[in-house]
Amino acid sequence: MSKNLTSRSQDYSKWYNELVVKADLAENSGVRGCMVIKPYGYAIWEKMQAALDQMFKDTGHENAYFPLFIPKSYLSKEASHVDGFAKECAVVTHYRLKNDPDGKGIIVDPEAKLEEELIVRPTSETIIWDTYRRWIQSYRDLPILINQWANVVRWEMRTRLFLRTAEFLWQEGHTAHATQQEAIEEAERMMEVYADFAENWMAVPVIRGVKTASERFAGAVETYCIEALMQDGKALQAGTSHFLGQNFAKAFDVKYVNKEGQQELVWATSWGVSTRLMGALVMTHSDDQGLVIPPKLAPIQVVIVPIYKGEEQLDQIHEHVKPLMNELKSLGISVKFDSRDTVKPGFKFNEYELKGVPVRLAIGARDLEQGTYEVARRDLLTKETLPQEGISGHIKALLNDIQETMYQKALAYRESHITEVNSYDEFKEVLNNHGGFISAHWDGTPETEEKIKEETKASIRCIPLDGAVEEGVCVYTGKKSARRVLFAKAY
Amino acid sequence: MSKNLTSRSQDYSKWYNELVVKADLAENSGVRGCMVIKPYGYAIWEKMQAALDQMFKDTGHENAYFPLFIPKSYLSKEASHVDGFAKECAVVTHYRLKNDPDGKGIIVDPEAKLEEELIVRPTSETIIWDTYRRWIQSYRDLPILINQWANVVRWEMRTRLFLRTAEFLWQEGHTAHATQQEAIEEAERMMEVYADFAENWMAVPVIRGVKTASERFAGAVETYCIEALMQDGKALQAGTSHFLGQNFAKAFDVKYVNKEGQQELVWATSWGVSTRLMGALVMTHSDDQGLVIPPKLAPIQVVIVPIYKGEEQLDQIHEHVKPLMNELKSLGISVKFDSRDTVKPGFKFNEYELKGVPVRLAIGARDLEQGTYEVARRDLLTKETLPQEGISGHIKALLNDIQETMYQKALAYRESHITEVNSYDEFKEVLNNHGGFISAHWDGTPETEEKIKEETKASIRCIPLDGAVEEGVCVYTGKKSARRVLFAKAY
Repeated sequence: MSKNLTSRSQDYSKWYNELVVKADLAENSGVRGCMVIKPYGYAIWEKMQAALDQMFKDTGHENAYFPLFIPKSYLSKEASHVDGFAKECAVVTHYRLKNDPDGKGIIVDPEAKLEEELIVRPTSETIIWDTYRRWIQSYRDLPILINQWANVVRWEMRTRLFLRTAEFLWQEGHTAHATQQEAIEEAERMMEVYADFAENWMAVPVIRGVKTASERFAGAVETYCIEALMQDGKALQAGTSHFLGQNFAKAFDVKYVNKEGQQELVWATSWGVSTRLMGALVMTHSDDQGLVIPPKLAPIQVVIVPIYKGEEQLDQIHEHVKPLMNELKSLGISVKFDSRDTVKPGFKFNEYELKGVPVRLAIGARDLEQGTYEVARRDLLTKETLPQEGISGHIKALLNDIQETMYQKALAYRESHITEVNSYDEFKEVLNNHGGFISAHWDGTPETEEKIKEETKASIRCIPLDGAVEEGVCVYTGKKSARRVLFAKAY
Repeated sequence: MSKNLTSRSQDYSKWYNELVVKADLAENSGVRGCMVIKPYGYAIWEKMQAALDQMFKDTGHENAYFPLFIPKSYLSKEASHVDGFAKECAVVTHYRLKNDPDGKGIIVDPEAKLEEELIVRPTSETIIWDTYRRWIQSYRDLPILINQWANVVRWEMRTRLFLRTAEFLWQEGHTAHATQQEAIEEAERMMEVYADFAENWMAVPVIRGVKTASERFAGAVETYCIEALMQDGKALQAGTSHFLGQNFAKAFDVKYVNKEGQQELVWATSWGVSTRLMGALVMTHSDDQGLVIPPKLAPIQVVIVPIYKGEEQLDQIHEHVKPLMNELKSLGISVKFDSRDTVKPGFKFNEYELKGVPVRLAIGARDLEQGTYEVARRDLLTKETLPQEGISGHIKALLNDIQETMYQKALAYRESHITEVNSYDEFKEVLNNHGGFISAHWDGTPETEEKIKEETKASIRCIPLDGAVEEGVCVYTGKKSARRVLFAKAY
């Protein structure tokens, strides 16, 4: 298989779009802005889901499912929430089609108009807090720690596979607490869970921080986030966790009776990650040869390609590798033997490189004689010939090494792309010639934030949680600033 | 906890509705016809999903994801398909809300009208076959064996939790094949997978059969089904698998080049089961005390209730049961220790009965002394005192026994509710006084089928696959018939 992949240096954006399609992750559908997630892409998403789901359960959460539709009036109950979501939503107005009396196919039946329009959920705070009102009476009913795996719809005008689609898949956690402190702890805990997942499963280093007021989730008091850096120097928000205060409890009148017998409003959080993570995964690690997938998320961790002449030799190789395949499976390693005779080994090599399979074994007649395997690692594109004895242990260690090496490589890139600047000229110079995160003082006003964004396209990605308090002056206005924030162009 | 559950003999339908809510499986939402699946109900659904998903993968299928929305024109392409689904669908006509200029909240923005309306998928054949057209060129691209876990919407006018809801969760398999025979084999294979799941996981015996023409899926050439029998003598269709012939290939122009270089239309199947299975599970096994859940699908298989006075004794019991809990977990058995001090043991006993936890252990001061446990099984509501030695092995065997006993009980009920009749009077007599499946001769015409349904409310559930060829005369018209079919009133 020939890859014909645009290189990153040629056109990073085109490289991404081509790679997602050619590596069989996803493609556009006949429905504007909606993607088809293909089996290979979905298999990676399933691995992400499984890991996250276990992490949610380990932190005490349960899954549930709430309606796809949200009555228009619900959306309106929390003022800033509706402002944030009304402009980009799919609205269901009718519940029936009928034959066109003029014989021109089928039309919407005007008699089947809904009394109240339904919005396809862009996020589920409103429908869930309408439900929580029925579930919560006393402090004994708290906390409620629920997660939902679901599809959501936001009518984006410009879409890109995984990064920004009208429909996407995600999980959304929605929790209810008796106290402010408990809710804040929960929001912070889930940010940490996301950071743990990004770093230890996706091999994507992230910066933990909070959003500025203007970048906050519509309805949140505080938005915690994890921010990753792509290979083109642009940032990508990889997950958010919101402390919602009592905003939704107020909007939906959700109160509980505390131990002292008094009524109080309930405290809330919500948090989510989506199929956008697939985009982050691709853009952090992949190269001009195709995908590079961290072993922990690879649908196929090891592929064995036989180099053979004739069916007899193929059978011989297949028999020979069976014990190894069983050994690998017993070590929890997924392995595929590619016996296709319709394509040549070189085609297969290219295909598995494109698809980012972490380890490729090749075995031919000479390897059979000498008791060896050719072992290639996808991340470094290196290969070596190894004796078959002890090879399964070697592969296990190799997979761990690939996972770690990928993380360290991404971390080194990220670390070399956080630049402290002290003037606006320097800001623009670094942004345009080097990219990455720019650590700069800002006067704390939304006006300055907005002006910098207008002029440079860089937004404040976050106020990093590990940032030191350091007095300085805003690079734009020269006004006083108490700490640096991170700017970047972003996806 | 007092259950206050209507008994089955009093009002079966009311019993079901109450039980689903009181046992925390699901409840109605503020959105007409849409349910909230609560954590306990969702945990059962997750177990169903995990088992089915593994069975699909073991039979060579992969998961993928297709858009929620279907352009109206797609739905129209297969004539019988649109007839079947147009009357009950949610239609998206706009993509934006805006502030009402009269200041009355938010309204649909009339300027954001879609050029073509989008239907919220009632099933995905059309959007998927539109995609398959791009994926299939040659025989080498076949078969395609894909499954999707998704939500779908059918605008039902009368809804009931799990059994009939406007939105429901399901899986839908969609496969493409080079030959008719291969597609028929696939449709039959998936019917067998569903039957296997129903019988061996849900402990629900089912009859395998095919639907009559008038009960077929809209667009299918043949619909295979599994039919279960509820405790009130009504049947419930638990899963369907459709041989779609070349209908969707024709509608979406999906052709492949065969080995001889000629273009041919592709053959198709689709198959699905839904959250309706939750309703079947409840109605097959549960009793007047609450849910009875087969151990293989129970979120909690064993609960341990301590009977204690004071915190010291509670700690003592907790320490005592820890080794047992670890043993059970290592045997793959889920176990919960209920240490709540806000409710009494009797309340807990009632609660776990209501929730259908298969095995309950109770342990008090005397058991501690004597080294015993009180072991209660939910299905038979019996209990015995057993020595702690060897108790984990006993529990493992007990869970297997409960699973098998539940199946045998349901099977015995079903077997005693299949009645052969040879006249229409007998038909009506059995239907009204005994219920269940009625095995009767039918002349094979949709007219007779329809008249019997009108007069008795019994429909033909299926033409059973294991039914012998046996000449006879139709109970309604006296015309010739080649085999018996199964009638029943149905959910």
